[in-house]
Amino acid sequence: MAEYIEGKRPVIEALRTSVPLERVLVADNLKRDGLVQDILRKAKAAGVPVETKRRADLDAKSERGSHQGVMAQAKPFAYAGLQDIIEISRRHADERNGSALVVLLDHITDAGNLGAIARSAEVVGAAGIVIPNKRSAHVTAATYKSSAGAIAHIAVAQVANVKQACERLKEDGFWVAGASEKAPDRIWDANLQGKMVLVMGSEGEGISRLTLETCDFLVSLPQVGQTASLNVAQSATACMYEWLRQNTPSDS
Amino acid sequence: MAEYIEGKRPVIEALRTSVPLERVLVADNLKRDGLVQDILRKAKAAGVPVETKRRADLDAKSERGSHQGVMAQAKPFAYAGLQDIIEISRRHADERNGSALVVLLDHITDAGNLGAIARSAEVVGAAGIVIPNKRSAHVTAATYKSSAGAIAHIAVAQVANVKQACERLKEDGFWVAGASEKAPDRIWDANLQGKMVLVMGSEGEGISRLTLETCDFLVSLPQVGQTASLNVAQSATACMYEWLRQNTPSDS
Repeated sequence: MAEYIEGKRPVIEALRTSVPLERVLVADNLKRDGLVQDILRKAKAAGVPVETKRRADLDAKSERGSHQGVMAQAKPFAYAGLQDIIEISRRHADERNGSALVVLLDHITDAGNLGAIARSAEVVGAAGIVIPNKRSAHVTAATYKSSAGAIAHIAVAQVANVKQACERLKEDGFWVAGASEKAPDRIWDANLQGKMVLVMGSEGEGISRLTLETCDFLVSLPQVGQTASLNVAQSATACMYEWLRQNTPSDS
Repeated sequence: MAEYIEGKRPVIEALRTSVPLERVLVADNLKRDGLVQDILRKAKAAGVPVETKRRADLDAKSERGSHQGVMAQAKPFAYAGLQDIIEISRRHADERNGSALVVLLDHITDAGNLGAIARSAEVVGAAGIVIPNKRSAHVTAATYKSSAGAIAHIAVAQVANVKQACERLKEDGFWVAGASEKAPDRIWDANLQGKMVLVMGSEGEGISRLTLETCDFLVSLPQVGQTASLNVAQSATACMYEWLRQNTPSDS
């Protein structure tokens, strides 16, 4: 189903953050105020067609009733296949001393966390992100914002079965490390060198039992504080940087 | 000036996340729907007084006009003094093999980032957070949410002058490390052992020139990706974990 962005400011934000857009729809009775002028200018600059429609047509497409006479239709996100990510990993391993990183999100449901993890994953040079195609946050226009645009520059694969995806990656030489608060082994003491799948569990429940079984080992980030626990995106970033640390030659 | 939380759901959220509240105000003509019942129940459980006021009184206090007949007055956040943080650090150093961490935010302006950093700082066992008292995000009711409550469990000091605060911390035996993308030295190669001030710069401009001058050394998190840069809260978390890694005995 097509995803629509509703309202003047959200459409400006989508254009500003380079969300790939099919088209912008404006109501035929729309008043051309400053925001609308800005939308038309930005759409033209980005090569996004602008179509004038009856307001009733916008109403019919609107989910939230907040379109203010302006909507933008997002292009469907171009997911990669798992095989694409495997091939990118092989390339990375060739170029980077045998190391590559795939981040697998085991039913992360918060769209903001998905975007934040994608942003950090792009920065550390991960080969891609694997997410389940059900009961999981997926890539929407909002992910462009929460990832600061990084989502456009990293491969994301949706898979039907997380465990099978892990098995497939293992066949290609990956080790599968699950991040779990309860793991007795600290991530610093684990060997993360080489081709690594980093599995992060969902916000509420962590890694599912089935996925845990397929992990080669579990690692934890020590928590010294009294009360709080880490946000999953923060945790993912700290783990990814530990992977990068262990895979960066010390003389470079 | 008193900070008010406006509207039924925001007030419920404030009660749910244990924001310290002076009182809850309800309009005298308020309909007792399910949300209102929930507010009254939660306020009672938390020992927060509920006062009935004329709706016009709520209107007068409302900044956003969205109170729906319910407002909560937040208690002013109890900032620590820099001296408190120094004393907590001494205690930490005594207990933790000489190590202590203070996180200094050089004009971070996004309230969400402040909360996210506070959450991670609490988890790694930092002694406290230092923020400037001007041109900086400060602790509000929203910080309880963005820090998942951690802000209540870590000392936060507001200072008039960031550079002077650094000098004061140095006198007490701290090293001041500035995190900068442009630093040639990777954080892994720096010695972060002992009492450390980690300085994080603002979202847009990084660490200010004056603050840079007072840093003993600068460290960077390598960025391998093509496009994105790290979010400051993610960056702070990765740096804090590197501090924790270097200060955790390997045999414990």
